[in-house]
Formats: sequence, C-alpha cells, structure tokens
Amino acid sequence: MSQQWVFDFDDADPDNRSTLGGKGSGLVRMTRSGLPVPPGFVVSTDACKAHLEVGGDLDPELWVQITSAIKRLESRTAKEFGGAKDPLLVSVRSGAPISMPGMMDTVLNLGMNETSLRGLADMTGDEEFASSTLDRFRSSYLSVVHSVNEPTAADLEWVPDDPWAQLRAVVSSVFRSWNTPRAIAYRRIEGIPNSLGTAAIVQAMVFGNASEDSGTGVVFSRNPATGSPGLWGEYLPQAQGEDVVAGVRTPLPIDHLAVDQPAAFERLSDIARQLEAQARDVQDIEFTIERGVLWILQTRDAKRTGGAAVRIAVDMVEEGVISATEAVNRVTPRQVEEVMHPTVRPLPGVAPLIEGLAASPGGATGVVTLTADRAEALAADGTKVILIRDETNPDDFHGMVAAQAIVTARGGMTSHAAVVARGIGRPAVVGCVDLVVDYDNRRILTPAGSLEEGATVTVDGTLGLVFPGEHPLERSSDGAYLEQLLGWADQQAIVKVRANADTPRDAEVAVKLGAHGIGLCRSEHMFFEPERLAVMRSMILADTEEEWVVALTRLEEYQFDDFVGLFRVLAGRPITIRLLDPPLHEFLPRDDQDRAGDAATYPEGWERRVEQLREANPMLGHRGCRLGITHPSVTAMQSRAIGRAMVASEAEGIDLDVEIMVPLVGSAEEMENQKEIIEREIARLEAEHETSLPVTIGSMIELPRACITAGEIARAAEFFSFGTNDLTQTTLGMSRDDSASFLGPYLELGIRDEDPFVHVDEAVGELIEMAIARGKAARPDLETGVCGEHAGDPESISRFAQYGVDYVSCSPYRVPIARLATAHAANREVHAR
Amino acid sequence: MSQQWVFDFDDADPDNRSTLGGKGSGLVRMTRSGLPVPPGFVVSTDACKAHLEVGGDLDPELWVQITSAIKRLESRTAKEFGGAKDPLLVSVRSGAPISMPGMMDTVLNLGMNETSLRGLADMTGDEEFASSTLDRFRSSYLSVVHSVNEPTAADLEWVPDDPWAQLRAVVSSVFRSWNTPRAIAYRRIEGIPNSLGTAAIVQAMVFGNASEDSGTGVVFSRNPATGSPGLWGEYLPQAQGEDVVAGVRTPLPIDHLAVDQPAAFERLSDIARQLEAQARDVQDIEFTIERGVLWILQTRDAKRTGGAAVRIAVDMVEEGVISATEAVNRVTPRQVEEVMHPTVRPLPGVAPLIEGLAASPGGATGVVTLTADRAEALAADGTKVILIRDETNPDDFHGMVAAQAIVTARGGMTSHAAVVARGIGRPAVVGCVDLVVDYDNRRILTPAGSLEEGATVTVDGTLGLVFPGEHPLERSSDGAYLEQLLGWADQQAIVKVRANADTPRDAEVAVKLGAHGIGLCRSEHMFFEPERLAVMRSMILADTEEEWVVALTRLEEYQFDDFVGLFRVLAGRPITIRLLDPPLHEFLPRDDQDRAGDAATYPEGWERRVEQLREANPMLGHRGCRLGITHPSVTAMQSRAIGRAMVASEAEGIDLDVEIMVPLVGSAEEMENQKEIIEREIARLEAEHETSLPVTIGSMIELPRACITAGEIARAAEFFSFGTNDLTQTTLGMSRDDSASFLGPYLELGIRDEDPFVHVDEAVGELIEMAIARGKAARPDLETGVCGEHAGDPESISRFAQYGVDYVSCSPYRVPIARLATAHAANREVHAR
Repeated sequence: MSQQWVFDFDDADPDNRSTLGGKGSGLVRMTRSGLPVPPGFVVSTDACKAHLEVGGDLDPELWVQITSAIKRLESRTAKEFGGAKDPLLVSVRSGAPISMPGMMDTVLNLGMNETSLRGLADMTGDEEFASSTLDRFRSSYLSVVHSVNEPTAADLEWVPDDPWAQLRAVVSSVFRSWNTPRAIAYRRIEGIPNSLGTAAIVQAMVFGNASEDSGTGVVFSRNPATGSPGLWGEYLPQAQGEDVVAGVRTPLPIDHLAVDQPAAFERLSDIARQLEAQARDVQDIEFTIERGVLWILQTRDAKRTGGAAVRIAVDMVEEGVISATEAVNRVTPRQVEEVMHPTVRPLPGVAPLIEGLAASPGGATGVVTLTADRAEALAADGTKVILIRDETNPDDFHGMVAAQAIVTARGGMTSHAAVVARGIGRPAVVGCVDLVVDYDNRRILTPAGSLEEGATVTVDGTLGLVFPGEHPLERSSDGAYLEQLLGWADQQAIVKVRANADTPRDAEVAVKLGAHGIGLCRSEHMFFEPERLAVMRSMILADTEEEWVVALTRLEEYQFDDFVGLFRVLAGRPITIRLLDPPLHEFLPRDDQDRAGDAATYPEGWERRVEQLREANPMLGHRGCRLGITHPSVTAMQSRAIGRAMVASEAEGIDLDVEIMVPLVGSAEEMENQKEIIEREIARLEAEHETSLPVTIGSMIELPRACITAGEIARAAEFFSFGTNDLTQTTLGMSRDDSASFLGPYLELGIRDEDPFVHVDEAVGELIEMAIARGKAARPDLETGVCGEHAGDPESISRFAQYGVDYVSCSPYRVPIARLATAHAANREVHAR
Repeated sequence: MSQQWVFDFDDADPDNRSTLGGKGSGLVRMTRSGLPVPPGFVVSTDACKAHLEVGGDLDPELWVQITSAIKRLESRTAKEFGGAKDPLLVSVRSGAPISMPGMMDTVLNLGMNETSLRGLADMTGDEEFASSTLDRFRSSYLSVVHSVNEPTAADLEWVPDDPWAQLRAVVSSVFRSWNTPRAIAYRRIEGIPNSLGTAAIVQAMVFGNASEDSGTGVVFSRNPATGSPGLWGEYLPQAQGEDVVAGVRTPLPIDHLAVDQPAAFERLSDIARQLEAQARDVQDIEFTIERGVLWILQTRDAKRTGGAAVRIAVDMVEEGVISATEAVNRVTPRQVEEVMHPTVRPLPGVAPLIEGLAASPGGATGVVTLTADRAEALAADGTKVILIRDETNPDDFHGMVAAQAIVTARGGMTSHAAVVARGIGRPAVVGCVDLVVDYDNRRILTPAGSLEEGATVTVDGTLGLVFPGEHPLERSSDGAYLEQLLGWADQQAIVKVRANADTPRDAEVAVKLGAHGIGLCRSEHMFFEPERLAVMRSMILADTEEEWVVALTRLEEYQFDDFVGLFRVLAGRPITIRLLDPPLHEFLPRDDQDRAGDAATYPEGWERRVEQLREANPMLGHRGCRLGITHPSVTAMQSRAIGRAMVASEAEGIDLDVEIMVPLVGSAEEMENQKEIIEREIARLEAEHETSLPVTIGSMIELPRACITAGEIARAAEFFSFGTNDLTQTTLGMSRDDSASFLGPYLELGIRDEDPFVHVDEAVGELIEMAIARGKAARPDLETGVCGEHAGDPESISRFAQYGVDYVSCSPYRVPIARLATAHAANREVHAR
C-alpha cells in the first residue's frame, strides 16, 4: 500500500481539513506561514478509518510512515526519541475534522522513561519536575491506553519503557477513542457523521521551564473583556502550561514580558497581529518560550464578553478588516443581551438556592419580599427588594415595578410574571418547582432550607438561578458601539422590529431601543391602574344599562388620554392597538379582602356576579373578540377613544399610522362583526370633524381555527398579527401557566428539544405558514406580523423571516436583540441564494 | 303572445312542477288519477315571473286565459261565478315549486258578495254561516290585497263586489306575495332561488256544511301515532274545515263515517290506499263530502311519531313497497331518539321555568334536589329526584346516577354533566344561564321566581326545558321494529359504531343497543368510586415511593377486575382502553369538608400538595400522556392490569380484541415513550405466561399539533382515535365548560350557525382530514375512529364517513342513532356515486 498517511506540518495542505482534522490543519497553516510552531506531524483521519475498519495492531505500512516521521523530527530538533540527554518528548492528541471539545484523548510527554527522566532532569535542573513528568505520562498512558483511571503501583508495569512501543499503543488508542460511547453520543447529539474519523497529532514537546529565560502564557490580540485594541494576556516565567492551569503560581500581565524579554515580546506582538489578520478575528494564542525561543502552540478565535464582541466587530469594520454584514453576523444575541443587562458573577463556592426558568435576563440583589404591597412600601424607603410569589397576577403589577427582580414558584416562560418582567426590564426566574412560598409564616421553603422575608438573595435571570446573599454584578455598558452595530443591522434586515408597549412610558423605551413602531398595544393594560380598575369594576358589576354607560364613558376618557400620549411619542411610527382581550373576571376582586380600599361601587350580590363570571379554563373562555361581540358597546367605546385621539393628534400636527386589532378571532363572521362596529364609529367621527381618519383594521391570529380559515378572515382583515403565545397554547394544548410541571421532565427525557414558549414549535410554524399563504391568496397586500413572546427569540425570528412576515413585535427590552436577529435572518437568506 | 299560462287540473303534466308549483302539481296528479278533486286550474309560475318583471295590472292575454278557465269551471260545476243561486266560489292559493309553508297567501270563498251571499244561505240553509263567510272573505281580501289586518267598517268599500275584479286583484297579490320581505328572507335562509316564482291555484270551493250528508275531515292511510295499519282519522259532519281548526266542535273518529255514509267511507278507504301506493308513503289526506259526494282536497306525506315512522318503514319493507335502504333512509335520527326516550307533553298553558341546552334527550319528573348526597338518599327512599347543580364534577356521580334527570346552570354540550348524563342515559339540561343555584338557602332562583328544594319539576332534555310541576311523559316502545330497522342499517353502513363505556354495566347496555365494540373505555373512571378514590388519593398524596407503590398495586387489582369483567361482556368485540387522562387534582378533595369521611391517608401538609397541583387551565395542563410520561409507573401499572386481564380471559376461553390508547398525544416522541412502556409490560407477561397477548397500541388525536404531526405519530401509533371534544376546544380556543356565555349570543347573532360541540366544526374537520391523510401516508393500514361526543351526532357522522374513518364511538344511548346515521352516510355515498 502506497497511500500517504502521515503529513509533516511543513509539508501538507492546510485546507485539507477532512484528512488532517481541525487541529492538524491549524498547525500546518501556522507552520507554513512561517510561525515558530514546534515541529510535528499528523497521522491522518484516513489512517484512523482504515485502522478502525480492520482493528488489531497498527498497519505495518502506517507504522513505517510514523517511524520515518519521528526520525525526521529527531533530526529537526537535534534530540533523540527517548534519549538520555535532551530527550525528544512528544505530545499525541486527537483532532477530528469537526471540533469535539473534551470528548477525546491526549497524552503529553510521550517518550518519558527511566532513561529520558535523567535527560530531562539534567536539562531543566529540576529532578522533581522530571520525575513528576514521568509520573504524569505514565498515568495518562494508563488512562488512555488501558482505561485505568486510578492506577496502583502494580499497574505501572503495563507502561512500556520503549518510546516506540508507547507511541504505537497511544496512536492506536487515540484512533479507538473515536468510537467510545461518549464520543458516539456526542456526535449523535451534535449531528456529526460517524464516518469522519479523527487524526492523531504528534508534536515535539517544548519546555517553558527549561531555564530562567523560558516561560509560558496566553495572549489575546485584543482585550477579550472590553474589546479595546492591543495585546492582552498573561505570562508565567519558568513554567509549563500545566502550572498556569493548576493555579499554583500567579501569572504576570503580559507587559512584564516586554521588560524581561523585549525581543520575544516584540515577536509575539507581531505574530498576534499576523494571526488576527489571517483569521480576521481576535485570536487567543498559547505560547511557550524555551531558552529565549518563542514557540506558538495554538491559536483560535478568542472567546469574548458581549461588550468586547460588539466593540471588536465595530472596530474591525472601521479598520476595514470586515464588512458591516460580517460584523453583524459575528455578534450573537446572547452577547447583545449581555451588553444590555448586568451579569451575576457568583462568589466561588456558593450554590444556587433555587433553580427555575430564565424568564427575563439580567441580575439583581435585594431582600426577599412576599407581597406586592410590601415590596412597594420597602422600595419607597429605598430598600432593594426581590419579589417572590407563588405566581403573579395583574394586582401585583405595582410590586413588580418596585422590585429589582421577580421570582415565582409557578408559571412558564410566558406566564404573567415572565411577560411583565420582560416588559418592564426586570430579571425574573419563574416556574421554580421546588420553591414553596409560605405566606402565613412569611418565609420561603427551598430544598436547601427556609429563608425568612428580609433575607438577601441575588437573582440571575439570565441563567434562571437564585443565590443566597449578595454577589457581584457586572455590566458592560458602552452603548455607542451597540448602537452603531444595530444601525447596520437595521439596514440589513428585511423584517422590521416593533415593540409591545401599552403606555407612553413603555413606548418611549421602545423607541429609544430602536423599535420601528408598536406592534402590540394591549389597550386593557390601561385599566389596571387602581383608579381605572375601580371604574372597570363598576362597569362589569353594573346593575343597570345606565350605570354601565356611565362607567364606559369614564373609561373612554382614560383611553383617549392614553392614546393621545402614545401617538405623541410615536410621531408617525405605526401602532397596532388591540381591543379588550382578557376575560372580565380578571378585573374583579376574588374576595372581600381583595376588594378592600377599592373605590368601585359594589352592588348587592356582587359576589354572585363574580362567581358567575368564574371560568374553568379562562384561557379558552369568554374573552377577546367574544367580549366585543357580546358587549358591542365596549368595542364602540374603544374605537371612539382611538378615533378621537387621532382627531386631537391631527390637530397637533402629529403624523399617524394606526392599526386596530381584533383579538382571538376564530372566524370571518367575528371579524366582520367587530369591523362593522369600528368602521361605524370612525365614520361617525370623520363626519363630525369633517376629516379623514385612516385606520386599518385587522385580526390577531392566535387560534388554530383562525389559521385554517385565514382565507375567509383575510377578506375582512387588512392585517394579521400572530399571537404566538396563545397559538402555541391552543395548538399544543398546553397552558403556559401550567406547563412547568411536565415541560421540565420533557426536556430532560428528550421528548422535547426546546421549550415551545421560548422557541416557536414546528407545528405552530406550519399553521402560521398556512395562514399567511391562505390570507395572501385572498388579500395579496395583507400585512403580517408576530406579536407573541417568540417575536423576541432569535431562533423563532429566523423562522418568521422565512415565512415572510413584515414585522416582529417584542418586549421593548428585547428590541435590540430582535434587531440583530432580523439582520441575521436576512443575511442568512442572502447567503442561501 | 301565445304562451299557455293557465292549466286546468285535468289537462296538464303533473311532472311539470317548476311551472305548476308543488301544490298545483299534486292537484293535477290526483285529478289525472281519476280522484274526485274539486275542479280548478293553475296560473303558472311563468305568469308570475312575467307579471313581476313588468309590474302593474295583469297581462291582458293572461286575463283572457284566466276568464276562459273560470268559464270552463262554471260549466263543469254547473254553478255561476258570483251567482245568486248555488254560486261558484273559488279558493286562490299560492304554490311555489319548493314548499314554503306559511310564507305565502291564501284567499278562500272568492266570489262572495251581497248577491252570492243569498245563494249560499239558500243552499246551506244557514244564514249566519253565509254571512260570516262573506265577512271572512272580505277580511282575507283586505289582508292579502291591501295588507289591512284589522279592517274597520270603512275599509270594506275597498272590497269589490264584482267577482272578476276580486279575482284579478287576488291573483296579482298572490304573485306579488313572492317578493314580500318575509318570503325573500325565508328563501335566503333556506337557499331557495328567487327566480322560481310561485303559481296561483284557483279551485272551486266545496262545502262540507251544505247538508246533513255533508262533512269534512282528515284521514291518514296508517296510524301516524303508532304506525299500525288501516285508515285512521277524524270526521266532522255538516262542517267546513275551518270549524275543525277552530275547535268549536269535536270531530268524530273516522269509523263513524263508515256507519253514517258507508259508500263514502269505502271510497275514502280505497282512495287512501291508492294514494299511499302512489306515494309509497303514508298519506295525510284532507277531504270534504258535499251532499254525499266525496272530494279530496289535498294529500301529502304524513307527519308521524318516531315510533310510527319506524314501524311504517319496517312494515312497508315487509309489504314489498319499499326497499330496506329506503326504509332506513326514511327514518330520521330524531325519530329514533323519540322511540328511545320518553317525550314530555307539557300541560297546556304551562311555560317553561328555565331554558338551557338540550344536553341529553328524554323527559323525567321529580323533586328539586341540590346535592348529590341528598339525591342519593332520597332516591334510596324511592323518591324521584331531579339533581340541579351549578355544575357537576366527578364527586357528583352517585347523585347523577340516583337522579331521574340533571340540570346545571353552567357548562356546554360536552360539560361533565352533559357527558355523564348521556353516558348513563339520563335527560339533562345544562348551561341554563338564567338559573342561580342558591345552596345556602336550599333553593333555585329563576327569572320566573324561586323554587325550594323538594318542589316538583319536569325536565325535557330533548328540547332543553324545565317545567314547574308534573307533566305527562309519552313513550313509544315497540323495540322489535327498531331492532329490525337498525339491523338493516348495520348491513348498509360502512362506518362501524362503537360505544364509549367504562364499566361492564355500561358495556352491557352498549352491546344490547347494538354497539360493535367499545371505542373509548376511560380507565380512570374506574377510580371514582369511593373506595377506589381513597386509594387514588393516597397515591397522589404519597410522601414516599413506597406508599406510592402500595397504592398503585391496589389500583392494579381493581383495574384487573374491571378489565376481566369488560372482556367477558365484550366476548371478542374490540375494546379501546384509554390510559389515565385527567389531571391528578381532579381526584383530590378541594377542601377539608370535601375530604370528610374519606378513607384515604392524608399526610401532613396535604393541602399544600393540593394547592401545588391546582392549575390555571386544567384542560391545557398536566394530563393525558403527560401524566404517563412524568409517572411512568402509572402507565406500567395500567398496562399490566390490561395484560393480566387478557391472560385470565384467555384462560376462560374468551376471545379478545384489545387496543390500548395513549391520550393527549402531541408528538411522536410522546407516543414512542408510552408505547415502549406498554410493550415492555406486555412482553414481560407474555414471557411469564408463555403466551401471546395481541394488543394494538395507538394515539388519541385531540390536539391540533397531533393532526399536523400525524405523519410522525403514525409511525409509532397503530390507530388514531379522534377525541373531537378536546380537538374542538383547542382548535377553536373554546372551553366547553365556559362557552355557554358567548355561544348563545353567537347563535342568535348568526356569527355561528351551529354549536361546535354538537356538530363538528369545519376547521376541526379539516384537521381530522389532514391527520388521516398524513397518518395513512405513513401507515397505510392505520385504523381511524372518532370517540368524541360528535360521534353520536348524525350530521357529524356524515362528515366523518366522508373522511373515511373506520368507526365512530358514542355514548351507549346514542348507539342506535349512530347506527342509523352511519347507514344514511353510506346510502348517500352510494347515491352520490
């Protein structure tokens, strides 16, 4: 057989990654660029595949090629393999074409034996180091070749003294490691083909502890924490990489190298620049200096903080290294999130107290508080509080605003607590199944014990953890870079980003964070402030038509003011106003206590009315347009309030782009009924004020039936806005408030790969696609958007973009992430063409 | 113009219905069959259309044809139109090609004036009758021609004396009546084209009050109440039809005619037989005898009771008149329902106390009782009780069984109360929105006032009414005819009918009513009996794994016994057993009181566990296979119980056809998870008993997601059973328990034509079709069925048959209706080919 199975670093094609593996290809590339890489060779993936096919010993021809390569290495390094004086030691590593970090085996210092021990001791002048190197080699040999992880003295006899025998056994083990159950499982999960095989890389060891002018370190071509330019890193004189890892000695800032060994420093700086230019990205470079000679061991794209990622991407565009599109594509949504929210850096050794769903990102510290009223009171005194509840409901809103963060025992990613927390930009952890809130005794019970109200905790909403005590919060905050990056993103994106915002204050945040408009204004959220709630309650409990009308009229005035305020903030940006959606009982007190201090008028027998309105499954009950149909006066009132606000805004010279959205539509008849009422009221105002009020009227699409009958609905609806929360709940038959108890196990068992309330489900996606196709067949210029929580999830946004939606609308604090994600989606699409 | 617009009864083609109209065609047919029909003529629908197109007066040519026809009538009757002696009077009626009962106009006694008044008085010897005839003619003329409904003396001058002028005005009004708003609206609703036009029928009046040997009556060719053969009807001597209607005199049984006028009776009997033979159906015949001469005024297919319909259909097959297919097609589901359940015949003048949804058919009388315990206690003492509750839940089951009928304030057609009532064959009225159950004061409040517990009421579950007091109940009960008819239906049907039955007792009823097997055995229903409920509760509240297993083992024994019992009853018929479906909290007490007397072990802090299990939307919560996945031991226990029961039954020599159904499946992964557990347990038993246990394993399909991913699910599932209740709830986003408050208004406003929980919704249908197509693409021999409540609804069955399902499975008491409906569906399909 005459196939070439062994490739010296300086004699191979670095692009031949499938043969050399990823690591091998990198070493070849650096070598061929003239960088000082310790010499070595790659035993190819083809050799691995051939070996695994046949089994048994290494192929004789392969062994001939390997021994020749070692001979070349000996002559190149002027060292002898297993020699007694300055011995040639090598590392043997696996390196597959696709990275499988930590999955496969490595043996260092191969060639060590009783003979070379002496050579190493003489060379380093460190007997102890030499003998510990021998020990370490032996135990890693036993682990890799014989799977013995805690060797006894007796096991040592299994380690051959002959370096050739060592090499033969280790190469063959590295190949076999391709088929360990762990590696196979990893590949199955990651979708890596089993047929690839791994290469084995054999490389001469260099020793940073060989002399006083030796050392080892890691440098970055730019600061990976802040992104600021210039070499950054650490250096440990007279040491090996393992010493750095072991943390026995503290490394010095890289500047010290400039003083200690100016030439090596200069060379390192040049190499870092060269590697960065080649890779067109910041590099993380491992180096060793042996007796004043610099060796580069590895380079790779550097991990970086969110802030650094954004700054580096922007800087590189300005340096002309990458395009704006590349810059946008390089930054991940998670990195943007990191820039926007403080990150918890838990103190070492502190385990989380509670785990739950990461419902709203960011970190915060404060004292445990169990009621919204108490949270508000404490916050008013300047105390930072963490509101912890069984679950939250609209009555808790003031306490949530007052709190630094919110934690709930129940609920999923789109529960009330989660939705509100994201809306107001508070970190939140929800669905903590092991948390019990013991209101009676004013404490919480956790698997780790109980905690009284007033105890300090730190909430990590990004990871879904709650820690006892206070922990540092980090914030990377150079907003200008992010703004620049997202400006480019907006230019690249096809899908627009709007925000869900109900009040002028929310709208201001949204506009500031770059929202193109408001895609969901939940008009009823305006009814939850105490004064208005009282009026709302009076209306619902009204005994007579007359009382009903009085309350309705007062509500109209509130709504009018709200809409005027919103139109002013938006200044011509589009706004989609959803008509009353929640069931009426959500506005009512649950009992006498809940009613305390309420200014509403309670007619006799109000409790019975509350009881009558109670529902078994409120999610599937008398809500959405069903309310507007059974109570047409409410739809009319809301339409009037919107129309009057438009008239007033027009008078102020404010531009308008108003869409009125009918919620929970399931049939064309429902849409037609509501449209007629809205059009009638708008037409009346137009006649009265001799003006034109250009509103478009559309449907929220959040029921499977609406998707199926979309062709009929689109004849009445000028736009569709997909409410993916409810559409997910109905399509999957899964209540967002009740799913925590089984979604957790589902994810663990692999029955689901993802939480459908986080990433849009494929079947929900199919319904959305169907609805868009049927809707556009009936009305080609139908506008489509998504206003459910998925509109802020990059993975889901990518799908929505494929379906061809015009916009997504998410919580204001998700807008920057969505802007990035829509650009990613567009760039992927361009790429795919 | 030379078109023929006027057709004498004896000179037209009876098949030319579009020209003659339905009534005209019938009169022509009878005349041409030689029957004694008072002579007359038809003014055609073409004349009507022409007249309506031009407007104004009648066309001169038409008028010429009409006057000629009257002249022929005069000579044929030897009477003079408007004459002073034995005057010719005529009726003028409208008659469209498609019947529009009560929608259009009729004028009798046209030709009456001061002159003919004398003639009539002389002829009848009844001055008063003659003058009232004139009055009646005049007021009907004013009503039809001038739309004056309460004429004053002054209005009378509008009535012309000239019979020709009368005729011209009335014919033209009859034509115009085609376009009254009422008629147009009726046609729009019924889908009758506006272009048809109506004919006007002019016919000589005959007088049953002309002499002592005159009279009038109605006969049926068979008894329309019982179906028994032979002439049946009533006769009123010396009277006109109006006298019968007015109820002034009581008619005599038709036998009297045989005595009074044997020849006329003989002739009438012959004619009835002849008409029935011609129509091949029982006839409802109006006749008048004028001076001993028999005249037939009208014949039509007779309305009949359910019992009569069934008997007549069966008799006619046996008489060789119709085929078995025709017999089956002629009987309606409502008629079968009537045969099966007692019918309430409310006493005159008693208005219903409460109205609600007709949830379970039949009638019953009993005393108002507000709790299940009290209902049981009273029933044990022999009192008939009507259980009236706000809504029912599984804890009320014993009270529902004890009651004669059930009434609830809440809930829709598939609420717990409705489903259980149908299952146990009790009449039920649910969703009575105006009913308040005042448990504290032991009374109910209705719009008509309050009623104490203990008051007597009568429930009409067929119409959804509750009456105060006791009312007669009628039952037509000749089961042999129904059995014969349904036997034919079974032969004609393609879709099989199974029953939903949970216990051996239910299964016996189902088999007796002709079920082909059990399509839905809700295994958890076995857990609701008190002793078992206690064990179930102990399991759910178990503190330790050990306690859980102890309870589970006891439940397995119960289930084993149940399944053995079921298999014995079924004797080889198929049974589909659904694994545990409802959320666990449904089994738990709601409070301390609810717990009273319960034998379950309650660990400390059980209330907290109950609280933890509480769900915001239980319908969309932790239930169905989600339970089986998070609690695999329950699935394993149920599989073992089924498998062991199979082993035991095999030993008894009982044939088996067992299907295990996994509920609430939404993904292939869920199905695979549960299938693995079931197969493992069955395989273990097979090995242990060295036998083979042939079970098939399939999915309940009740979520939109399941329909969409049906292709994947079918790879693991051997059958699909559509749970259309839940599929309707999720597709429409409509809770069956909460929909009453808006579905009522929806039906009134025409936003929906039908209750989607009664007749399957079109979008739900589309999902079912999609699921069957995708499922069969993946598994061509996939068995499909429907086990939701719609499976008992004939209209829905017709759709399911089109989708190609193999069976429908409904409540046992719906089985006969479903058997008829599946035959209807098959016969329609054959017809359509």
